[in-house]
Amino acid sequence: MSLAAASSVTPDPDRPGRHVAEIAPGWDIVGNANGGYLLALAARAGADAADGRLPVSITAHYLAPGKVGPIELDSEVLRVGGRFSTVRTTMADADRTLLAVLGTYAEIDPATPAHPTERVDASPPDMPSPDDCTPVEPTDTFPPPFMGKIELRLHPDDASYGETPGGTPRFRGWFRLHDEEPVDAFGLLVAVDAFPPTIFNAGLPVAWTPTVELTAHIRRLPRAGWLRCQFTTRFITGGFLEEDGEIWDDTGQLVAQSRQLAVLPRA
Amino acid sequence: MSLAAASSVTPDPDRPGRHVAEIAPGWDIVGNANGGYLLALAARAGADAADGRLPVSITAHYLAPGKVGPIELDSEVLRVGGRFSTVRTTMADADRTLLAVLGTYAEIDPATPAHPTERVDASPPDMPSPDDCTPVEPTDTFPPPFMGKIELRLHPDDASYGETPGGTPRFRGWFRLHDEEPVDAFGLLVAVDAFPPTIFNAGLPVAWTPTVELTAHIRRLPRAGWLRCQFTTRFITGGFLEEDGEIWDDTGQLVAQSRQLAVLPRA
Repeated sequence: MSLAAASSVTPDPDRPGRHVAEIAPGWDIVGNANGGYLLALAARAGADAADGRLPVSITAHYLAPGKVGPIELDSEVLRVGGRFSTVRTTMADADRTLLAVLGTYAEIDPATPAHPTERVDASPPDMPSPDDCTPVEPTDTFPPPFMGKIELRLHPDDASYGETPGGTPRFRGWFRLHDEEPVDAFGLLVAVDAFPPTIFNAGLPVAWTPTVELTAHIRRLPRAGWLRCQFTTRFITGGFLEEDGEIWDDTGQLVAQSRQLAVLPRA
Repeated sequence: MSLAAASSVTPDPDRPGRHVAEIAPGWDIVGNANGGYLLALAARAGADAADGRLPVSITAHYLAPGKVGPIELDSEVLRVGGRFSTVRTTMADADRTLLAVLGTYAEIDPATPAHPTERVDASPPDMPSPDDCTPVEPTDTFPPPFMGKIELRLHPDDASYGETPGGTPRFRGWFRLHDEEPVDAFGLLVAVDAFPPTIFNAGLPVAWTPTVELTAHIRRLPRAGWLRCQFTTRFITGGFLEEDGEIWDDTGQLVAQSRQLAVLPRA
Protein backbone atom coordinates (compact mmCIF):
# COMPACT_ATOMS: atom_id res chain seq x y z
CA MET A 1 0.00 0.00 0.00
CA SER A 2 1.38 3.37 -1.05
CA LEU A 3 1.91 6.17 1.45
CA ALA A 4 -0.82 8.10 -0.37
CA ALA A 5 -3.26 5.26 0.36
CA ALA A 6 -1.94 4.53 3.85
CA SER A 7 -2.25 8.18 4.86
CA SER A 8 -5.62 8.92 3.28
CA VAL A 9 -8.17 10.66 5.47
CA THR A 10 -11.91 10.98 5.00
CA PRO A 11 -14.01 13.89 6.24
CA ASP A 12 -16.72 12.88 8.68
CA PRO A 13 -19.87 14.47 7.20
CA ASP A 14 -21.48 14.66 10.64
CA ARG A 15 -18.63 16.37 12.43
CA PRO A 16 -17.14 19.53 10.94
CA GLY A 17 -13.36 19.46 11.24
CA ARG A 18 -13.21 15.72 11.80
CA HIS A 19 -11.55 13.19 9.54
CA VAL A 20 -11.50 9.45 10.01
CA ALA A 21 -8.61 7.30 8.92
CA GLU A 22 -6.79 4.05 9.59
CA ILE A 23 -3.31 3.46 10.87
CA ALA A 24 -2.28 0.95 8.22
CA PRO A 25 -0.33 -2.22 8.95
CA GLY A 26 3.37 -2.35 8.18
CA TRP A 27 4.29 1.23 9.11
CA ASP A 28 5.38 0.24 12.60
CA ILE A 29 8.48 -0.10 14.70
CA VAL A 30 7.79 -3.26 16.70
CA GLY A 31 4.08 -2.61 16.81
CA ASN A 32 4.09 1.19 17.20
CA ALA A 33 3.46 3.27 14.10
CA ASN A 34 6.38 5.37 12.91
CA GLY A 35 6.20 8.95 14.12
CA GLY A 36 6.68 10.48 10.69
CA TYR A 37 3.87 8.36 9.28
CA LEU A 38 1.55 9.49 12.07
CA LEU A 39 2.54 13.08 11.39
CA ALA A 40 1.79 12.59 7.68
CA LEU A 41 -1.70 11.35 8.57
CA ALA A 42 -2.33 14.35 10.81
CA ALA A 43 -0.94 16.72 8.20
CA ARG A 44 -3.27 15.34 5.57
CA ALA A 45 -6.21 16.17 7.81
CA GLY A 46 -4.74 19.59 8.54
CA ALA A 47 -4.08 20.29 4.87
CA ASP A 48 -7.63 19.35 3.99
CA ALA A 49 -8.89 21.72 6.69
CA ALA A 50 -6.59 24.36 5.18
CA ASP A 51 -8.26 23.96 1.77
CA GLY A 52 -5.34 22.08 0.31
CA ARG A 53 -2.54 24.30 1.53
CA LEU A 54 0.49 22.25 2.53
CA PRO A 55 2.47 22.28 5.77
CA VAL A 56 5.44 24.64 5.78
CA SER A 57 6.03 24.34 9.52
CA ILE A 58 4.44 21.56 11.49
CA THR A 59 5.01 20.33 15.02
CA ALA A 60 3.80 17.11 16.59
CA HIS A 61 3.90 16.17 20.24
CA TYR A 62 3.70 12.42 20.76
CA LEU A 63 1.31 11.46 23.53
CA ALA A 64 0.77 7.73 23.07
CA PRO A 65 1.88 5.03 20.61
CA GLY A 66 -0.24 4.50 17.50
CA LYS A 67 -1.48 0.99 16.76
CA VAL A 68 -3.00 -0.39 13.58
CA GLY A 69 -6.69 0.49 13.41
CA PRO A 70 -9.17 3.34 13.13
CA ILE A 71 -8.37 6.85 14.26
CA GLU A 72 -10.10 10.20 14.36
CA LEU A 73 -8.44 13.47 13.45
CA ASP A 74 -9.96 16.70 14.71
CA SER A 75 -8.73 19.88 13.10
CA GLU A 76 -9.44 23.45 14.05
CA VAL A 77 -8.54 26.26 11.69
CA LEU A 78 -7.24 29.10 13.85
CA ARG A 79 -6.52 31.57 11.09
CA VAL A 80 -6.78 31.85 7.33
CA GLY A 81 -4.58 34.54 5.87
CA GLY A 82 -3.67 35.57 2.38
CA ARG A 83 -0.58 33.44 2.47
CA PHE A 84 -0.76 31.18 5.55
CA SER A 85 -3.36 29.10 7.36
CA THR A 86 -2.81 27.92 10.92
CA VAL A 87 -4.44 24.65 11.93
CA ARG A 88 -4.25 22.52 15.02
CA THR A 89 -5.09 18.86 14.89
CA THR A 90 -5.38 16.03 17.34
CA MET A 91 -5.27 12.33 16.51
CA ALA A 92 -7.05 9.87 18.76
CA ASP A 93 -7.87 6.20 18.73
CA ALA A 94 -10.80 4.73 20.61
CA ASP A 95 -8.97 5.07 23.90
CA ARG A 96 -6.84 8.16 23.91
CA THR A 97 -5.16 11.07 22.18
CA LEU A 98 -2.09 9.94 20.28
CA LEU A 99 -0.77 13.10 18.71
CA ALA A 100 -1.16 16.85 19.12
CA VAL A 101 -0.18 18.80 16.04
CA LEU A 102 0.10 22.48 15.22
CA GLY A 103 0.97 23.67 11.75
CA THR A 104 1.17 26.59 9.38
CA TYR A 105 0.07 25.71 5.86
CA ALA A 106 0.67 27.52 2.59
CA GLU A 107 0.83 26.93 -1.10
CA ILE A 108 4.08 25.26 -2.05
CA ASP A 109 4.14 25.39 -5.79
CA PRO A 110 7.03 23.59 -7.43
CA ALA A 111 6.55 25.77 -10.50
CA THR A 112 7.13 28.99 -8.56
CA PRO A 113 10.48 30.51 -9.44
CA ALA A 114 13.00 30.66 -6.65
CA HIS A 115 12.80 33.64 -4.33
CA PRO A 116 15.49 36.03 -5.52
CA THR A 117 17.07 36.02 -2.08
CA GLU A 118 18.85 32.71 -1.68
CA ARG A 119 21.84 31.90 0.46
CA VAL A 120 22.75 28.45 1.69
CA ASP A 121 25.74 27.99 3.98
CA ALA A 122 25.67 24.19 3.96
CA SER A 123 26.00 21.33 1.53
CA PRO A 124 24.18 18.07 1.09
CA PRO A 125 26.03 15.21 2.78
CA ASP A 126 28.71 13.65 0.67
CA MET A 127 27.86 9.98 0.17
CA PRO A 128 28.53 7.10 -2.18
CA SER A 129 25.78 6.45 -4.70
CA PRO A 130 22.70 4.57 -3.46
CA ASP A 131 24.02 1.37 -5.02
CA ASP A 132 27.19 1.68 -2.96
CA CYS A 133 25.38 2.41 0.30
CA THR A 134 23.99 -0.12 2.78
CA PRO A 135 20.32 -1.05 2.31
CA VAL A 136 18.19 -1.47 5.42
CA GLU A 137 15.88 -4.45 5.03
CA PRO A 138 12.80 -4.97 7.19
CA THR A 139 12.39 -7.80 9.69
CA ASP A 140 9.67 -8.43 12.28
CA THR A 141 11.77 -6.76 14.95
CA PHE A 142 14.92 -4.89 14.01
CA PRO A 143 15.22 -3.40 11.44
CA PRO A 144 11.49 -2.91 11.87
CA PRO A 145 8.60 -3.63 9.49
CA PHE A 146 8.41 0.10 8.64
CA MET A 147 11.59 -0.34 6.61
CA GLY A 148 9.52 -2.28 4.09
CA LYS A 149 7.53 0.86 3.27
CA ILE A 150 10.52 2.94 2.40
CA GLU A 151 13.91 2.44 0.86
CA LEU A 152 16.81 3.46 3.02
CA ARG A 153 20.44 3.24 2.01
CA LEU A 154 22.85 4.20 4.74
CA HIS A 155 26.26 5.73 4.29
CA PRO A 156 28.57 2.75 4.86
CA ASP A 157 30.43 4.67 7.57
CA ASP A 158 27.19 5.04 9.53
CA ALA A 159 25.74 1.57 8.89
CA SER A 160 27.28 -0.42 11.72
CA TYR A 161 24.62 0.68 14.18
CA GLY A 162 23.79 -1.86 16.81
CA GLU A 163 27.06 -3.67 16.29
CA THR A 164 30.10 -1.46 16.39
CA PRO A 165 28.85 2.06 16.88
CA GLY A 166 31.01 4.58 15.13
CA GLY A 167 30.83 6.94 18.05
CA THR A 168 29.24 9.77 16.10
CA PRO A 169 25.50 10.26 16.72
CA ARG A 170 24.73 10.70 13.06
CA PHE A 171 23.05 8.94 10.17
CA ARG A 172 23.52 9.87 6.55
CA GLY A 173 21.77 8.08 3.76
CA TRP A 174 19.38 7.98 0.86
CA PHE A 175 15.61 7.83 1.19
CA ARG A 176 12.79 7.12 -1.16
CA LEU A 177 9.34 5.61 -0.83
CA HIS A 178 8.68 2.02 -1.83
CA ASP A 179 7.99 1.45 -5.53
CA GLU A 180 9.45 4.90 -6.21
CA GLU A 181 6.22 6.57 -5.16
CA PRO A 182 6.84 10.30 -5.62
CA VAL A 183 7.66 12.11 -2.36
CA ASP A 184 5.25 14.98 -1.78
CA ALA A 185 4.98 17.17 1.33
CA PHE A 186 3.54 14.24 3.29
CA GLY A 187 6.29 11.94 2.10
CA LEU A 188 8.80 14.46 3.42
CA LEU A 189 7.17 14.19 6.84
CA VAL A 190 7.84 10.46 6.71
CA ALA A 191 11.41 11.06 5.58
CA VAL A 192 12.27 13.31 8.52
CA ASP A 193 11.58 10.46 10.95
CA ALA A 194 12.60 7.50 8.80
CA PHE A 195 16.17 6.94 9.91
CA PRO A 196 17.32 5.00 12.96
CA PRO A 197 17.75 7.14 16.09
CA THR A 198 21.14 8.89 16.02
CA ILE A 199 21.82 7.56 19.50
CA PHE A 200 22.34 4.12 17.90
CA ASN A 201 25.61 5.44 16.53
CA ALA A 202 26.72 7.29 19.65
CA GLY A 203 28.56 4.45 21.33
CA LEU A 204 26.48 5.04 24.45
CA PRO A 205 24.55 2.53 26.54
CA VAL A 206 21.16 3.87 25.45
CA ALA A 207 18.85 1.69 23.40
CA TRP A 208 15.80 3.78 22.78
CA THR A 209 14.93 7.45 22.93
CA PRO A 210 11.21 8.18 22.57
CA THR A 211 10.31 11.30 20.64
CA VAL A 212 8.66 14.02 22.69
CA GLU A 213 8.22 16.48 19.84
CA LEU A 214 9.12 16.77 16.19
CA THR A 215 9.06 19.91 14.06
CA ALA A 216 9.50 19.86 10.30
CA HIS A 217 9.92 22.79 7.96
CA ILE A 218 9.20 22.16 4.31
CA ARG A 219 11.05 24.56 2.04
CA ARG A 220 10.28 23.05 -1.36
CA LEU A 221 8.71 20.00 -2.91
CA PRO A 222 11.42 17.61 -4.04
CA ARG A 223 12.11 16.64 -7.60
CA ALA A 224 11.70 12.94 -8.28
CA GLY A 225 14.50 10.61 -7.24
CA TRP A 226 16.44 9.67 -4.15
CA LEU A 227 16.58 12.14 -1.29
CA ARG A 228 19.90 12.82 0.37
CA CYS A 229 19.45 12.91 4.14
CA GLN A 230 21.47 13.68 7.22
CA PHE A 231 20.52 13.42 10.89
CA THR A 232 22.82 14.65 13.62
CA THR A 233 22.81 15.14 17.37
CA ARG A 234 25.06 17.61 19.12
CA PHE A 235 23.51 17.90 22.55
CA ILE A 236 22.85 14.86 24.70
CA THR A 237 22.32 16.79 27.90
CA GLY A 238 19.77 17.53 30.57
CA GLY A 239 18.17 14.12 29.97
CA PHE A 240 17.23 14.96 26.37
CA LEU A 241 18.75 15.01 22.95
CA GLU A 242 17.86 16.79 19.76
CA GLU A 243 17.99 15.18 16.35
CA ASP A 244 18.48 17.62 13.49
CA GLY A 245 17.54 16.51 10.01
CA GLU A 246 18.28 17.95 6.60
CA ILE A 247 16.78 16.56 3.44
CA TRP A 248 18.00 17.50 -0.01
CA ASP A 249 16.66 16.43 -3.37
CA ASP A 250 18.81 15.18 -6.20
CA THR A 251 19.08 18.64 -7.72
CA GLY A 252 20.97 19.72 -4.57
CA GLN A 253 18.13 21.79 -3.13
CA LEU A 254 17.26 21.69 0.56
CA VAL A 255 13.65 20.50 0.69
CA ALA A 256 13.10 20.01 4.41
CA GLN A 257 14.66 20.64 7.76
CA SER A 258 13.60 18.96 10.98
CA ARG A 259 14.39 18.83 14.65
CA GLN A 260 13.04 16.44 17.19
CA LEU A 261 13.45 16.37 20.93
CA ALA A 262 13.84 12.89 22.35
CA VAL A 263 14.10 11.82 25.94
CA LEU A 264 16.69 9.58 27.50
CA PRO A 265 15.34 6.77 29.63
CA ARG A 266 15.53 7.71 33.30
CA ALA A 267 18.85 6.71 34.78
CA MET B 1 8.37 46.16 35.53
CA SER B 2 10.07 42.78 35.85
CA LEU B 3 9.42 39.98 33.38
CA ALA B 4 7.78 38.06 36.23
CA ALA B 5 5.27 40.89 36.64
CA ALA B 6 4.91 41.63 32.94
CA SER B 7 4.17 37.97 32.17
CA SER B 8 1.86 37.23 35.08
CA VAL B 9 -1.41 35.50 34.25
CA THR B 10 -4.55 35.21 36.35
CA PRO B 11 -6.99 32.29 36.18
CA ASP B 12 -10.50 33.31 35.19
CA PRO B 13 -12.67 31.72 37.89
CA ASP B 14 -15.63 31.53 35.54
CA ARG B 15 -13.87 29.84 32.66
CA PRO B 16 -11.88 26.66 33.34
CA GLY B 17 -8.63 26.74 31.39
CA ARG B 18 -8.74 30.47 30.81
CA HIS B 19 -6.25 32.99 32.11
CA VAL B 20 -6.41 36.73 31.66
CA ALA B 21 -3.31 38.88 31.35
CA GLU B 22 -1.99 42.13 29.95
CA ILE B 23 0.55 42.70 27.26
CA ALA B 24 2.67 45.20 29.16
CA PRO B 25 4.10 48.38 27.65
CA GLY B 26 7.75 48.50 26.72
CA TRP B 27 8.17 44.93 25.47
CA ASP B 28 7.60 45.91 21.86
CA ILE B 29 9.43 46.24 18.59
CA VAL B 30 7.94 49.42 17.10
CA GLY B 31 4.55 48.76 18.64
CA ASN B 32 4.39 44.97 18.29
CA ALA B 33 5.19 42.89 21.35
CA ASN B 34 8.34 40.79 21.13
CA GLY B 35 7.63 37.19 20.14
CA GLY B 36 9.58 35.67 22.99
CA TYR B 37 7.70 37.79 25.51
CA LEU B 38 4.37 36.66 24.03
CA LEU B 39 5.57 33.07 24.20
CA ALA B 40 6.53 33.57 27.86
CA LEU B 41 3.01 34.81 28.60
CA ALA B 42 1.45 31.81 26.88
CA ALA B 43 3.85 29.43 28.61
CA ARG B 44 2.93 30.83 32.01
CA ALA B 45 -0.70 30.00 31.29
CA GLY B 46 0.29 26.56 29.98
CA ALA B 47 2.51 25.88 32.98
CA ASP B 48 -0.29 26.82 35.36
CA ALA B 49 -2.61 24.45 33.50
CA ALA B 50 0.11 21.80 33.84
CA ASP B 51 0.14 22.21 37.62
CA GLY B 52 3.40 24.09 37.63
CA ARG B 53 5.35 21.87 35.30
CA LEU B 54 7.64 23.91 33.05
CA PRO B 55 7.96 23.89 29.26
CA VAL B 56 10.62 21.51 27.94
CA SER B 57 9.49 21.80 24.33
CA ILE B 58 7.21 24.59 23.26
CA THR B 59 6.14 25.82 19.85
CA ALA B 60 4.36 29.03 18.98
CA HIS B 61 2.83 29.99 15.66
CA TYR B 62 2.43 33.74 15.28
CA LEU B 63 -0.94 34.71 13.87
CA ALA B 64 -1.20 38.43 14.52
CA PRO B 65 0.89 41.13 16.23
CA GLY B 66 0.38 41.66 19.96
CA LYS B 67 -0.41 45.18 21.15
CA VAL B 68 -0.36 46.56 24.69
CA GLY B 69 -3.58 45.69 26.49
CA PRO B 70 -5.69 42.85 27.84
CA ILE B 71 -5.48 39.33 26.45
CA GLU B 72 -7.08 35.99 27.15
CA LEU B 73 -5.19 32.71 27.22
CA ASP B 74 -7.14 29.48 26.77
CA SER B 75 -5.32 26.29 27.68
CA GLU B 76 -6.40 22.73 27.13
CA VAL B 77 -4.53 19.91 28.85
CA LEU B 78 -4.32 17.07 26.34
CA ARG B 79 -2.45 14.61 28.48
CA VAL B 80 -1.01 14.32 31.97
CA GLY B 81 1.61 11.61 32.30
CA GLY B 82 3.96 10.61 35.06
CA ARG B 83 6.68 12.74 33.58
CA PHE B 84 5.16 14.99 30.92
CA SER B 85 2.05 17.06 30.43
CA THR B 86 0.94 18.25 26.99
CA VAL B 87 -0.96 21.51 26.82
CA ARG B 88 -2.15 23.65 23.95
CA THR B 89 -2.85 27.31 24.45
CA THR B 90 -4.20 30.16 22.37
CA MET B 91 -3.71 33.84 23.08
CA ALA B 92 -6.30 36.31 21.85
CA ASP B 93 -7.03 39.98 22.24
CA ALA B 94 -10.49 41.46 21.85
CA ASP B 95 -10.31 41.12 18.08
CA ARG B 96 -8.40 38.02 17.13
CA THR B 97 -6.13 35.11 17.94
CA LEU B 98 -2.53 36.24 18.28
CA LEU B 99 -0.66 33.07 19.10
CA ALA B 100 -1.20 29.32 18.92
CA VAL B 101 1.04 27.37 21.24
CA LEU B 102 1.67 23.68 21.84
CA GLY B 103 3.98 22.49 24.58
CA THR B 104 5.20 19.57 26.62
CA TYR B 105 5.78 20.45 30.24
CA ALA B 106 7.76 18.63 32.92
CA GLU B 107 9.53 19.25 36.17
CA ILE B 108 12.88 20.91 35.58
CA ASP B 109 14.59 20.78 38.90
CA PRO B 110 17.93 22.58 39.07
CA ALA B 111 18.84 20.39 42.05
CA THR B 112 18.51 17.16 40.04
CA PRO B 113 21.89 15.66 39.34
CA ALA B 114 22.90 15.50 35.72
CA HIS B 115 21.71 12.49 33.74
CA PRO B 116 24.66 10.11 33.61
CA THR B 117 24.53 10.12 29.82
CA GLU B 118 25.94 13.41 28.67
CA ARG B 119 27.67 14.22 25.44
CA VAL B 120 27.95 17.66 23.92
CA ASP B 121 29.62 18.12 20.54
CA ALA B 122 29.57 21.92 20.59
CA SER B 123 30.94 24.79 22.61
CA PRO B 124 29.52 28.05 23.83
CA PRO B 125 30.43 30.89 21.48
CA ASP B 126 33.78 32.45 22.19
CA MET B 127 33.24 36.12 23.01
CA PRO B 128 34.87 39.01 24.81
CA SER B 129 33.52 39.65 28.31
CA PRO B 130 30.23 41.54 28.54
CA ASP B 131 32.11 44.74 29.37
CA ASP B 132 34.04 44.41 26.13
CA CYS B 133 30.97 43.70 24.00
CA THR B 134 28.63 46.23 22.39
CA PRO B 135 25.55 47.16 24.43
CA VAL B 136 22.25 47.60 22.60
CA GLU B 137 20.36 50.58 23.97
CA PRO B 138 16.64 51.11 23.38
CA THR B 139 15.17 53.93 21.34
CA ASP B 140 11.60 54.57 20.20
CA THR B 141 12.30 52.89 16.88
CA PHE B 142 15.54 51.02 16.33
CA PRO B 143 16.94 49.53 18.50
CA PRO B 144 13.40 49.05 19.78
CA PRO B 145 11.87 49.78 23.21
CA PHE B 146 12.07 46.05 24.05
CA MET B 147 15.82 46.47 24.46
CA GLY B 148 15.09 48.41 27.65
CA LYS B 149 13.64 45.28 29.26
CA ILE B 150 16.72 43.19 28.71
CA GLU B 151 20.45 43.70 28.59
CA LEU B 152 22.07 42.67 25.36
CA ARG B 153 25.79 42.88 24.67
CA LEU B 154 26.73 41.91 21.14
CA HIS B 155 29.97 40.37 20.04
CA PRO B 156 31.82 43.35 18.50
CA ASP B 157 32.26 41.42 15.26
CA ASP B 158 28.48 41.07 14.93
CA ALA B 159 27.49 44.53 16.15
CA SER B 160 27.64 46.55 12.94
CA TYR B 161 24.15 45.46 11.90
CA GLY B 162 22.26 48.02 9.90
CA GLU B 163 25.43 49.83 8.98
CA THR B 164 28.09 47.60 7.53
CA PRO B 165 26.71 44.09 7.59
CA GLY B 166 29.41 41.54 8.21
CA GLY B 167 27.95 39.19 5.67
CA THR B 168 27.38 36.35 8.12
CA PRO B 169 23.77 35.87 9.23
CA ARG B 170 24.71 35.42 12.86
CA PHE B 171 24.48 37.19 16.19
CA ARG B 172 26.52 36.25 19.21
CA GLY B 173 26.19 38.03 22.50
CA TRP B 174 25.34 38.13 26.17
CA PHE B 175 21.81 38.29 27.53
CA ARG B 176 20.33 39.01 30.89
CA LEU B 177 17.10 40.53 32.11
CA HIS B 178 16.96 44.11 33.30
CA ASP B 179 17.98 44.67 36.93
CA GLU B 180 19.58 41.23 36.89
CA GLU B 181 16.21 39.55 37.40
CA PRO B 182 16.96 35.83 37.52
CA VAL B 183 16.25 34.03 34.25
CA ASP B 184 13.83 31.17 34.79
CA ALA B 185 12.20 28.98 32.13
CA PHE B 186 10.04 31.91 31.01
CA GLY B 187 13.04 34.20 30.86
CA LEU B 188 14.70 31.68 28.57
CA LEU B 189 11.72 31.95 26.22
CA VAL B 190 12.39 35.68 26.04
CA ALA B 191 16.09 35.07 25.46
CA VAL B 192 15.55 32.82 22.45
CA ASP B 193 13.86 35.67 20.59
CA ALA B 194 15.73 38.63 22.05
CA PHE B 195 18.45 39.18 19.47
CA PRO B 196 18.11 41.13 16.23
CA PRO B 197 17.13 39.00 13.24
CA THR B 198 20.19 37.23 11.81
CA ILE B 199 19.23 38.59 8.38
CA PHE B 200 20.42 42.01 9.58
CA ASN B 201 23.96 40.68 9.36
CA ALA B 202 23.56 38.84 6.08
CA GLY B 203 24.46 41.69 3.77
CA LEU B 204 21.23 41.10 1.89
CA PRO B 205 18.58 43.62 0.85
CA VAL B 206 16.02 42.28 3.34
CA ALA B 207 14.87 44.46 6.19
CA TRP B 208 12.41 42.38 8.12
CA THR B 209 11.56 38.69 8.38
CA PRO B 210 8.36 37.98 10.32
CA THR B 211 8.42 34.85 12.46
CA VAL B 212 6.02 32.13 11.35
CA GLU B 213 6.90 29.67 14.11
CA LEU B 214 9.31 29.39 16.99
CA THR B 215 10.20 26.23 18.91
CA ALA B 216 12.26 26.28 22.09
CA HIS B 217 13.68 23.34 24.00
CA ILE B 218 14.66 23.97 27.59
CA ARG B 219 17.32 21.58 28.79
CA ARG B 220 18.14 23.08 32.17
CA LEU B 221 17.43 26.14 34.26
CA PRO B 222 20.36 28.52 34.08
CA ARG B 223 22.56 29.48 36.96
CA ALA B 224 22.49 33.19 37.75
CA GLY B 225 24.53 35.50 35.58
CA TRP B 226 24.91 36.44 31.97
CA LEU B 227 23.77 33.97 29.32
CA ARG B 228 26.01 33.30 26.35
CA CYS B 229 23.92 33.20 23.18
CA GLN B 230 24.37 32.44 19.52
CA PHE B 231 21.89 32.71 16.65
CA THR B 232 22.74 31.47 13.19
CA THR B 233 21.06 30.99 9.84
CA ARG B 234 22.31 28.52 7.28
CA PHE B 235 19.38 28.23 4.90
CA ILE B 236 17.84 31.27 3.26
CA THR B 237 15.93 29.34 0.62
CA GLY B 238 12.46 28.61 -0.64
CA GLY B 239 11.30 32.01 0.60
CA PHE B 240 12.06 31.18 4.24
CA LEU B 241 14.94 31.13 6.65
CA GLU B 242 15.57 29.35 9.90
CA GLU B 243 17.19 30.96 12.90
CA ASP B 244 18.90 28.51 15.24
CA GLY B 245 19.62 29.62 18.78
CA GLU B 246 21.78 28.18 21.51
CA ILE B 247 21.84 29.56 25.00
CA TRP B 248 24.46 28.62 27.54
CA ASP B 249 24.75 29.69 31.16
CA ASP B 250 27.94 30.92 32.74
CA THR B 251 28.84 27.45 33.97
CA GLY B 252 29.15 26.39 30.31
CA GLN B 253 25.95 24.32 30.29
CA LEU B 254 23.54 24.43 27.37
CA VAL B 255 20.26 25.63 28.85
CA ALA B 256 18.11 26.13 25.76
CA GLN B 257 18.02 25.50 22.06
CA SER B 258 15.65 27.18 19.65
CA ARG B 259 14.71 27.32 16.02
CA GLN B 260 12.38 29.70 14.34
CA LEU B 261 11.09 29.78 10.80
CA ALA B 262 10.83 33.26 9.36
CA VAL B 263 9.45 34.32 6.03
CA LEU B 264 11.08 36.55 3.48
CA PRO B 265 8.93 39.37 2.15
CA ARG B 266 7.48 38.43 -1.21
CA ALA B 267 9.79 39.39 -4.02
